[in-house]
Amino acid sequence: MTVPRIGLTAGDPGGVGPEVVVKTLARPDLLPPAAYVLYADPAVIENEEKRLGLRLSLRPRPSGGPVEAGTFLDPVPGPPGPVALGRAAPANGEASFRAFETAVAEAREGRLEAVVTAPISKAAWALAGRPYRGHTDYLERLYPGAVMTFWSERLKVALFSHHRPLREAVAAVRKDALLVFFRSLHRGLARVPGGPYRLLVAGLNPHAGEDGGLGREETEEIGPAVEAAAAEGIPVSGPFPPDVVFLKALGQAGTVAAALYHDQGLIAFKLEAFAEGVNATLGLPFVRTSPDHGTAFDIAGRGLADPRSMGEAVRLAAAFSATGS
Amino acid sequence: MTVPRIGLTAGDPGGVGPEVVVKTLARPDLLPPAAYVLYADPAVIENEEKRLGLRLSLRPRPSGGPVEAGTFLDPVPGPPGPVALGRAAPANGEASFRAFETAVAEAREGRLEAVVTAPISKAAWALAGRPYRGHTDYLERLYPGAVMTFWSERLKVALFSHHRPLREAVAAVRKDALLVFFRSLHRGLARVPGGPYRLLVAGLNPHAGEDGGLGREETEEIGPAVEAAAAEGIPVSGPFPPDVVFLKALGQAGTVAAALYHDQGLIAFKLEAFAEGVNATLGLPFVRTSPDHGTAFDIAGRGLADPRSMGEAVRLAAAFSATGS
Repeated sequence: MTVPRIGLTAGDPGGVGPEVVVKTLARPDLLPPAAYVLYADPAVIENEEKRLGLRLSLRPRPSGGPVEAGTFLDPVPGPPGPVALGRAAPANGEASFRAFETAVAEAREGRLEAVVTAPISKAAWALAGRPYRGHTDYLERLYPGAVMTFWSERLKVALFSHHRPLREAVAAVRKDALLVFFRSLHRGLARVPGGPYRLLVAGLNPHAGEDGGLGREETEEIGPAVEAAAAEGIPVSGPFPPDVVFLKALGQAGTVAAALYHDQGLIAFKLEAFAEGVNATLGLPFVRTSPDHGTAFDIAGRGLADPRSMGEAVRLAAAFSATGS
Repeated sequence: MTVPRIGLTAGDPGGVGPEVVVKTLARPDLLPPAAYVLYADPAVIENEEKRLGLRLSLRPRPSGGPVEAGTFLDPVPGPPGPVALGRAAPANGEASFRAFETAVAEAREGRLEAVVTAPISKAAWALAGRPYRGHTDYLERLYPGAVMTFWSERLKVALFSHHRPLREAVAAVRKDALLVFFRSLHRGLARVPGGPYRLLVAGLNPHAGEDGGLGREETEEIGPAVEAAAAEGIPVSGPFPPDVVFLKALGQAGTVAAALYHDQGLIAFKLEAFAEGVNATLGLPFVRTSPDHGTAFDIAGRGLADPRSMGEAVRLAAAFSATGS
């Protein structure tokens, strides 16, 4: 292999996914050398090219997979008839699910080093009878050690839990589960360039519990899990006050803030890295990244979507693939 | 009254409070015209002046209170003997508590428009037998409608709850209590310049619960409370996804993000306004502000403390006092 093979999915056809993918692939000069394979409905992509006045140089995907740099198309059936724009529709959900499933299957079989996914609609997946809470949820069922992480130039964040009610997320903060998480995260990061990475762990309670005065999870669960992981040689410290840990991690090379629940990590990450954030799933046998935004149904089909996060997701996928992960 | 009368307390003598107060009052040319009354131990202040090579023009406080611009001292006994620097000590806790209590009593009796408090140590207060979790906790016991808010140029945040374990904070998210909070906050903000203010309310769960799929507090408690408050004429909307609401509020004049628990608000605020944030307690018959940092025991007595947040706290107190609140 001379260049990494990177699959792209266009996400929900009714959202901004096809737009940010076309905008990104239309400027191959700005992308790292790779074989980019787009898993999408040709009609959806052509329609988007017309709407944006852009033209991709898509070649049919050679059998056995591409081995040279370029942009290739692997057609996946899209919704029949005109695309329902700007809302969750079952045909769109089915199309985006199939494209994702196909790309993941290719990666699992070793024909792609990385998969970059444009945003899907969970509601559309549900309407199509695909009851996953998103790409990461699907991947976690295949790979229970998968970890959701977020990357920007200045801040890297990993999530111990993500799509669950806060009440449940709080109850899930237990020593054993945290230790498993630290191990998975550490193992996943070992294959990522820019390391070795050290982990700064957030507390759960205000001021990290103030020695038990503001909550006991730090002394009874998080602290012991950090100590156990450190004893195994994992470079981890904490728990730190949640409103301090992201400031400590900010701008520090080789440092990942480990957040204990969805919004603890994402309030910080979205403020810091709004237009350029990338979501990366670690702990898979291939690389998977995606832009840090949703389908943006409110602006779908209007040419207004910002492709920077998608471009960063592609660049990060190429960088991670380069180390053979 | 020609100028506002603003009381200052120097906080814990073993922390950076005296330092940031002296640095701030040493540059009266940078402060708005006001009668500044410092409630502190003269020995502690003199020691800090020597250490920093600064000299304040402190006049004795005239009986009946000052009515002209200037810097005045109202002596409050400090710790006997040399000050224990860089750690929680009972004598320091007692001194900082008494200074605060004195300034608040003056404000309650109408002899100050505002009180600006340098950081105290809760641990030192506890050692001194003063079992409050901080200035705000003390004020909330006097004024149950008090609301903790945070102010910077670009972001304003109010907290529904603050110093309680996250598990309890989640359980406290109930419609009736939220409605009381929205009323108190709206009433408090009515007396603050820069209004009228609209409130953007955060959800509790990821993605604000996704219509109940990721938690029910949004549909059962928060949403109904927002509707009830709006029906009373309070300009309030939400609940918005917690990782989006601060971005929505950012840079918007007349907008306050209402956070449901300590770290939801403070992760965002500290990232956005690190060195210049101000804490303001609303819902009191006087103005109360403080810098958004703690005693910083690790750098106490070394001249390294950044006085910007203290300076902003003084400026905000003067601005809020100007409207007669």
